[in-house]
Amino acid sequence: MNKPERIDTSTEKAMLAMGQQAREAAHQLSLASPGAKAEALHAAAKALREAKPQILAANEKDLAAARAAGRPSAFVDRLMLNAARIEAMATGIDEIAELADPVGTVLAEWVRPNGLRFQRVRVPIGVIGIIFESRPNVTADAGALAVKAGNAAILRAGSESLNSALAIHAALVSGLKSAGLPEAAIQIVPTPDRAAVGHMLAGLNGSIDVIVPRGGKSLVERVQQEARVPVFAHLEGLCHTYVDKDADLDMAVSILVNAKMRRTGVCGATETLLVDRAAPDSFMPTLVSALLDAGCEVRGDATAQHADARVKPATDADWATEYLDAIISAKTVDGVAGAIAHIGRYGTQHTDAIVTANEETAERFMREVDSAIVLHNASTQFADGGEFGFGGEIGIATGKLHARGPVGVEQLTSFKYVVRGNGQTRPT
Amino acid sequence: MNKPERIDTSTEKAMLAMGQQAREAAHQLSLASPGAKAEALHAAAKALREAKPQILAANEKDLAAARAAGRPSAFVDRLMLNAARIEAMATGIDEIAELADPVGTVLAEWVRPNGLRFQRVRVPIGVIGIIFESRPNVTADAGALAVKAGNAAILRAGSESLNSALAIHAALVSGLKSAGLPEAAIQIVPTPDRAAVGHMLAGLNGSIDVIVPRGGKSLVERVQQEARVPVFAHLEGLCHTYVDKDADLDMAVSILVNAKMRRTGVCGATETLLVDRAAPDSFMPTLVSALLDAGCEVRGDATAQHADARVKPATDADWATEYLDAIISAKTVDGVAGAIAHIGRYGTQHTDAIVTANEETAERFMREVDSAIVLHNASTQFADGGEFGFGGEIGIATGKLHARGPVGVEQLTSFKYVVRGNGQTRPT
Repeated sequence: MNKPERIDTSTEKAMLAMGQQAREAAHQLSLASPGAKAEALHAAAKALREAKPQILAANEKDLAAARAAGRPSAFVDRLMLNAARIEAMATGIDEIAELADPVGTVLAEWVRPNGLRFQRVRVPIGVIGIIFESRPNVTADAGALAVKAGNAAILRAGSESLNSALAIHAALVSGLKSAGLPEAAIQIVPTPDRAAVGHMLAGLNGSIDVIVPRGGKSLVERVQQEARVPVFAHLEGLCHTYVDKDADLDMAVSILVNAKMRRTGVCGATETLLVDRAAPDSFMPTLVSALLDAGCEVRGDATAQHADARVKPATDADWATEYLDAIISAKTVDGVAGAIAHIGRYGTQHTDAIVTANEETAERFMREVDSAIVLHNASTQFADGGEFGFGGEIGIATGKLHARGPVGVEQLTSFKYVVRGNGQTRPT
Repeated sequence: MNKPERIDTSTEKAMLAMGQQAREAAHQLSLASPGAKAEALHAAAKALREAKPQILAANEKDLAAARAAGRPSAFVDRLMLNAARIEAMATGIDEIAELADPVGTVLAEWVRPNGLRFQRVRVPIGVIGIIFESRPNVTADAGALAVKAGNAAILRAGSESLNSALAIHAALVSGLKSAGLPEAAIQIVPTPDRAAVGHMLAGLNGSIDVIVPRGGKSLVERVQQEARVPVFAHLEGLCHTYVDKDADLDMAVSILVNAKMRRTGVCGATETLLVDRAAPDSFMPTLVSALLDAGCEVRGDATAQHADARVKPATDADWATEYLDAIISAKTVDGVAGAIAHIGRYGTQHTDAIVTANEETAERFMREVDSAIVLHNASTQFADGGEFGFGGEIGIATGKLHARGPVGVEQLTSFKYVVRGNGQTRPT
């Protein structure tokens, strides 16, 4: 073993070189034609399909390590690849290749009285740093979205998925290369060295324009704490479904059970049920029983406990907990105003839904709840770039600057002002 | 004097309380009607006009201190208020009041195959922190723009302009109050304590959403270094004017002299002249002589020195210097590709212009130069929110995320997704 400081120096040097290469690749990509980018992505998808044996072999190493470490089965499942999942990755890249190219789109144009013609035109951001944990498919999704938007990507996979990620990355690069795009358009940190994360968060000497973390709370907290460059942060998804007195109860049950139980581990899963105090007496029992019958633990206030004997008492901590599991908290609130106040206090500005047949109540909820996504009569599990029609995403941003909600191709772009004149000078 | 730690504790407490009040005011403002905001701003403009004597008296204190400290005349001029400048501030607020209200604007809408109706709707950001130095009018401009966009503002004036800023702020608040908007919509740090800046950069416990620095290099560097919240940074404005071989020379002279000399202290002033090596021999002498005759010092490469005996030799440092003075550097480059490469190396992604009659050359320059503002046949001094038709700005952002270029009312907003369904659940 080298001394720690030597390891760190060499990591730093390697990371800075990676940043420099990414910056150069980003410049080339920013000028690449839509056709070249689409061709490169289709070639990457093809290379991914052809590399199936190598990717599965690499994944087997990661799986063996995870099993040896006694990781829970949900973790192993997130990590696991098979022929179908590799095909899904390749299909995803093909779909991203076919999206409209965002670069060069004129977002607005106007003419000033002095004859100057203004355009606001979409351009790539530059270099996107993506730090992720156990899902190896992020390599493909994030790399492809970054390239489609004309950016270069620097990926840093968690040590638990590194072998899989490296094999996927190798296939992507051979695809890019065969289509004549720079290899450095998608780079990956080749070692599990945690110091690499610190260097990325420091921006690699100005080479990284934005960091997108994809992972659990501790990763996101480290990123928020250390990052010296902008971050598209995804904080918790403590999502609420509020059932109003004017809701159709059957619809509410259907939406609620889907919002909680379709997948309990996704960020758009509902974690708290809010029920209008003025709702008919049948509402709370019907709602919590449906959840309980679907296999969900319910932790409720007095009304909820009274509604079904299986409901456990909630503590204050429950209103602030993102379970990511088959558990929900349930509370009675004073109408839509009470729901808005509860969400303002405990919510994470991610995704919140109201179920009601009253349009006015719904509009008030959607105007006053300050979340990236607000839904009326629909499941919170629609919080997903694909469901929005974005053709993929690399996360849901809960911040309010630049990207908010699903981060797809358009959110990975910036803009510039192009101004055309015929000799105009500015008066004093 | 209290002990330092006691001073710091009380500053921190006061700043956190200010943050909390701003957060509450921002919530109220986010729901305020367009009419209420416009009325409050007109009332603030009226109050400003009525407070002219108090503002001038306060400004006299700042001016006396500046003169006693031997500040240069340009500094004193930036600080100085008179009846005309106060009227200009009030007029500016009236104009901002009359802008279209951005909040609630539907930026995009679409329907998915499952019937879900999506809207992307403009919403306020929340709380804007503005840290500025010697120009007291920032108090009025920044406060009014923030309120128009439905945000609360926390202002921190430089110690040199604090008396003036406090007097302007008092007038604004009395206007807001008379129109029924919360006083805390525009707050100002009441002391010159530098620790307040650090607390703002730390985000006041999550109460500040974005920081806008308005000032010199050392302020911007401190902000970049310390900020734990997003920043709309304005780095240097090292702007270039490139005169191509296909330029109309008369037009080039007129644009260049305006771009450099209209005002030398603004960020959109041209700092480097680039001339095409393939241009007629008359170009460089005519261009540099026009600048010299207008009172500008020229530091040039060999060709420029050869063109006029008054040209001084440029060093490498000159290509990287934002003079903000009647000085320009002048260089010969190999066509538009040479100009693009020079700007890529030395530019600050602020504003750059090309003068040419060749449309193809112009389009290449505007596509490949990665600056917030690129102009064809017009002066770089148009880099200004007012000239863009934004009705005011609180700075020019040189970053590529969220706001780029002039930061006006729209750039002080975010958006949310409003999704309307009729019972949709997400399939597994």
